[in-house]
Amino acid sequence: MAKADLVLYNATVVTMNARRDVFEPGAVAVEGNRLVGVGPQEAVLARFSAPETVDCEGRLLIPGLVNAHTHVPMSLLRGLVDDLRLDVWLTGYMMPVEREFVSPEFVRWGTLLGCAEMILSGVTTFADMYYFEDDVAEATAEAGMRAVLGQTLLKFPTPDAASYDEGLAYCRRFIERWRGHPLIVPAVAPHAPYTSTPEMIQQATALAAEMGVPIHIHLSETALEVRESRKQHGLPPIAYMNQLGLFQVPVIAAHCVHIQPSEMRLLGRVDAGVAHCPTSNLKLASGIAPVLEIRREGVPVGIGTDGCASNNDLDMFEEMRLAALLPKGVSGDPTALPAAEALAMATIEGARALHLDYLTGSLEVGKRADLITVQTDGPHATPQYRLSRQNVYSHLVYAAKSTDVQDVMVDGRWLMRNRRLLTVDLAEVQQRAKRFAEATGAFLHQREGSLLNKLLALGGLERAETYEIQVKARMQDPQAIEQRLSGPEFEIRKRSVRQQFDTYLLYNDPQLGMLRYREDNELVPRAEDERIPGQGLDVTPSYSLTLIGPTAEREYADSVILNRSRFTSKAGHSLRFYQEYFQPDRVVEIVKWRTRYRVLYGGEEFAINLDRLTKPAEAGLFLEIKSRTWSTNDALHKADLASRMLRTLGVTPEDIVRGEYIKLVNGK
Amino acid sequence: MAKADLVLYNATVVTMNARRDVFEPGAVAVEGNRLVGVGPQEAVLARFSAPETVDCEGRLLIPGLVNAHTHVPMSLLRGLVDDLRLDVWLTGYMMPVEREFVSPEFVRWGTLLGCAEMILSGVTTFADMYYFEDDVAEATAEAGMRAVLGQTLLKFPTPDAASYDEGLAYCRRFIERWRGHPLIVPAVAPHAPYTSTPEMIQQATALAAEMGVPIHIHLSETALEVRESRKQHGLPPIAYMNQLGLFQVPVIAAHCVHIQPSEMRLLGRVDAGVAHCPTSNLKLASGIAPVLEIRREGVPVGIGTDGCASNNDLDMFEEMRLAALLPKGVSGDPTALPAAEALAMATIEGARALHLDYLTGSLEVGKRADLITVQTDGPHATPQYRLSRQNVYSHLVYAAKSTDVQDVMVDGRWLMRNRRLLTVDLAEVQQRAKRFAEATGAFLHQREGSLLNKLLALGGLERAETYEIQVKARMQDPQAIEQRLSGPEFEIRKRSVRQQFDTYLLYNDPQLGMLRYREDNELVPRAEDERIPGQGLDVTPSYSLTLIGPTAEREYADSVILNRSRFTSKAGHSLRFYQEYFQPDRVVEIVKWRTRYRVLYGGEEFAINLDRLTKPAEAGLFLEIKSRTWSTNDALHKADLASRMLRTLGVTPEDIVRGEYIKLVNGK
Repeated sequence: MAKADLVLYNATVVTMNARRDVFEPGAVAVEGNRLVGVGPQEAVLARFSAPETVDCEGRLLIPGLVNAHTHVPMSLLRGLVDDLRLDVWLTGYMMPVEREFVSPEFVRWGTLLGCAEMILSGVTTFADMYYFEDDVAEATAEAGMRAVLGQTLLKFPTPDAASYDEGLAYCRRFIERWRGHPLIVPAVAPHAPYTSTPEMIQQATALAAEMGVPIHIHLSETALEVRESRKQHGLPPIAYMNQLGLFQVPVIAAHCVHIQPSEMRLLGRVDAGVAHCPTSNLKLASGIAPVLEIRREGVPVGIGTDGCASNNDLDMFEEMRLAALLPKGVSGDPTALPAAEALAMATIEGARALHLDYLTGSLEVGKRADLITVQTDGPHATPQYRLSRQNVYSHLVYAAKSTDVQDVMVDGRWLMRNRRLLTVDLAEVQQRAKRFAEATGAFLHQREGSLLNKLLALGGLERAETYEIQVKARMQDPQAIEQRLSGPEFEIRKRSVRQQFDTYLLYNDPQLGMLRYREDNELVPRAEDERIPGQGLDVTPSYSLTLIGPTAEREYADSVILNRSRFTSKAGHSLRFYQEYFQPDRVVEIVKWRTRYRVLYGGEEFAINLDRLTKPAEAGLFLEIKSRTWSTNDALHKADLASRMLRTLGVTPEDIVRGEYIKLVNGK
Repeated sequence: MAKADLVLYNATVVTMNARRDVFEPGAVAVEGNRLVGVGPQEAVLARFSAPETVDCEGRLLIPGLVNAHTHVPMSLLRGLVDDLRLDVWLTGYMMPVEREFVSPEFVRWGTLLGCAEMILSGVTTFADMYYFEDDVAEATAEAGMRAVLGQTLLKFPTPDAASYDEGLAYCRRFIERWRGHPLIVPAVAPHAPYTSTPEMIQQATALAAEMGVPIHIHLSETALEVRESRKQHGLPPIAYMNQLGLFQVPVIAAHCVHIQPSEMRLLGRVDAGVAHCPTSNLKLASGIAPVLEIRREGVPVGIGTDGCASNNDLDMFEEMRLAALLPKGVSGDPTALPAAEALAMATIEGARALHLDYLTGSLEVGKRADLITVQTDGPHATPQYRLSRQNVYSHLVYAAKSTDVQDVMVDGRWLMRNRRLLTVDLAEVQQRAKRFAEATGAFLHQREGSLLNKLLALGGLERAETYEIQVKARMQDPQAIEQRLSGPEFEIRKRSVRQQFDTYLLYNDPQLGMLRYREDNELVPRAEDERIPGQGLDVTPSYSLTLIGPTAEREYADSVILNRSRFTSKAGHSLRFYQEYFQPDRVVEIVKWRTRYRVLYGGEEFAINLDRLTKPAEAGLFLEIKSRTWSTNDALHKADLASRMLRTLGVTPEDIVRGEYIKLVNGK
């Protein structure tokens, strides 16, 4: 009799070896961190004696699941915001929150929370990509899970590095520290082609080659990314990465939703695996990866949950089920990706995609003891047919739940027994998670309460406080005004004609203020020799976003307003982006033709606008005098001048109106 | 203070009322089977006193989920066979098993098993369609669930009715018995347009109208169904049903995957709801229903699991999540069908689709007390953000699991407390389910062990035993043979030329025998006046399937074979169907040109085939003599004649070969 530390028997053993052996009843013998016996129960029990034996009656004993792509500390951002456009979600929420909160401590507790969830749902190995990966590694090793951990590199500053050089230096130290660890494989993780420079990719590849570690990278996740890559580099992202030499080292390519056929063949020739993330790709509307086609080229395809911010959990049973369902619906072929193949992707093929199949992913003698048991006693698991080997795969993929997982062992160590976690102090982790959520919530709550803070969170806005002097009046006869403007008091510096489309984002709470998105189309006369008959004008559009504060700071004689809380910036995003991001209660559009004069009056520069509102119809004709300044005294001086100017232009006090056009239109 | 029987407090109450109120902390008061108070905790506690109060700390209190389409007794067929073509799955497995096993007892235990699973996963109301619906109703009422139960009508014989008239009579008795029950709404369920006659639809509609009950029907599930309907009726299925008057009564339309825009508008004008079954539609490769477009026409769309045979569970949390994810991935818009909308479809909108929203689907005063609590203490539910009302919907749709459901109440009665079922004896139900599975398994196992039984299970095969007399020889010179055939011993009755593509389905186990699928293309000369130059022949194909038994019955002098176990039928399905259904170990194709003579020799009719094998190449030229008979004596007589004929045709014994072409080619 050979000796073992532990024998698990009376189980349905689903090996996921090359022959796809299923032993029923089967048994498994573990010695140290390795599998020393896997086979029919009788044979294993006859061969091994062990101090500990476990009766697995009614349970399936299968390889631990492999989560091929995640950002594990993002468990702390689970459910923060959902159902938004990718750009609003990313630049409006994820990036500002990560800038503010991601720290070694955040990463530690987020990793432990994610590990707890993964162990509870039968995951034994995962591939990560995040910041402060050294702390991810410590927490992962503490939880006892196996992982390929990729230190993120970005061309932008990150929470853990001010530049990509710093990031690379951090990454080198990280790899040196963890190389050779029994559970952890450190990796280099340049985030994506579009967030890297060519030098970065080359240096990351050189580092991976020097250290003998893999690269983990997002590739071809969205159609936009592929379009932009073709435009900028003349190649789609994977081909472009190949040109830069990336595939000299083993690669874990996450997503590959918009991979080209030639790129599939390329991946089939090099040492690369794909991490398919079906939930994330649907939820963020990236699309559905062509998994059947990629696998047909011999590329190993694993299944990943992606981070909790885009999933919102780390449940590989759900992911495996979705991975099995989608190709059928998309191809119209119900035999596409049968259950056994989906389970393979979540185990042995996932391990291959992570370059770890020599250690894990199947129950075979010599491999590490990474295994789980799955109970079959729930009504959803009843009955259990055994017409063919396919039944057990069907059950695991189409009916089993992550909560059916009973026991989890990694590297010969129990991480869970009968659903009790043994390596993670769940109560403490959840307490910490709650505290982080409170802090993040408070930060965002404060920001959400102020349009200015939300605007600032987007970045790209110059925080320039400015006084605006403004007065507005109804006008009956624009020609009369224009005649007076040609009088001696005025020096006209410039005259322009423009059509302005102003969209106001309005809130029920007046304390919030409002936002104005303006499309300003200036009509510019063409040079004489460029004119086409009847088309003497060019239209030059510009886009701006203005935050109009809740109250006027001061109101002067003749309703001249000094407005202090007004921020204007070039609008880099679309109107739709801002509408979703700022979530107004109402949206109103105002369209006007504006003849704008830049004039000198009393030695000061003013803008005089003669406006004809065309939407809403019959809103009328208006005269507007405006100026800006940084100085309070100057503002008061200009307010006086504006008041005088009104009289010069023949405006009577009863014509004066207050506030923005939107207020006139809106009746308040 | 008003009186109530029960107050649930300290919960996050998600009402799903028209204003989508969420009360946190909130409370709910129940009196009898009704909700009498729903609101902020303080208000409800101030108003109601109750003998029983339940602290719901950390739990969400939401309306019970509505499973809008299922076949609940099929829980007993869960995981029987999967990943097959729809026709193989349906005609090869589901129909034969249902023919054999579906009985009132089957339906009773299957319903209880399904109810147990649904209660455990938070479903309080479901819409069913099956046989023996009277027994489904009894079991459902016993389990305490609310349901719309549709008695299936088919133009074919069903397990509970020999004809559709009988089915209608059963249905009338069923409705009369259950009409007015506090939990059960009986319904008429003509299975689908393509399995009904026009008269059946009209009579079903008349019955529903007379009884004041809804109709539950499958509509436009597959592209094939729509194509066939257009071909046969000049209309797609829903328009065709409208023509027959179906929509005079309230309708629950399951699937609607291939619904046309005009049909969506039609459903929006009548009293119809749609049951969207995303898992089933993906798994059976039917496609993805255009849910956004259907809802845009004002049609209420609920979510259904479909039966366990095509899902394979009744988990509405999984279904709701998938319903939320698919429209995003398909439309490319991540804001499509946000979480709150998906939860609405699984609750109030589902109730509306079932014509039950006046009773259930939301937590509102006056409605029935159909509610569930959901715990939020797992790591997958951590942290819980509360930035906006969206967070709670996000959590329920994207992260919560069915196993988070703690308590379930229907019609004011607890069906589950702290995950303990109160109305179903799970141990007994599972025991019964196991016994059914064993019987079904044994039936199918026996069938799977015999190709003949499998072939018979398909139906349409005439079980005609026949002797085949057969002898085969290599031939050097076909012209010499043809010359001899013109001799006085032979009377040629017919000569034909054909190309035959024979696909053999082979098994490693010789006891199984083999199957041959033949595409036989006869070349038929065209009539003189129809000939196009160079195209004097028409090709007339025919398809046959032959089961060739494992052993020759007797072998005579000159290797004349009498073969007894040989079954040939017209092949009604495609080659691909048979390959999947019969699951051979190997598949080999043989192609030959055959000149076939029908001759009289010694007063008996024989076929003489002169064959040139073209695949595999270089297989050579063969002469084959064949005849058939029902009689043993006749067979022996013809074997003698065949032996004599060989000599007449100048064949020497060393030219004789044994067995099928496939054996020559295959080397055994």
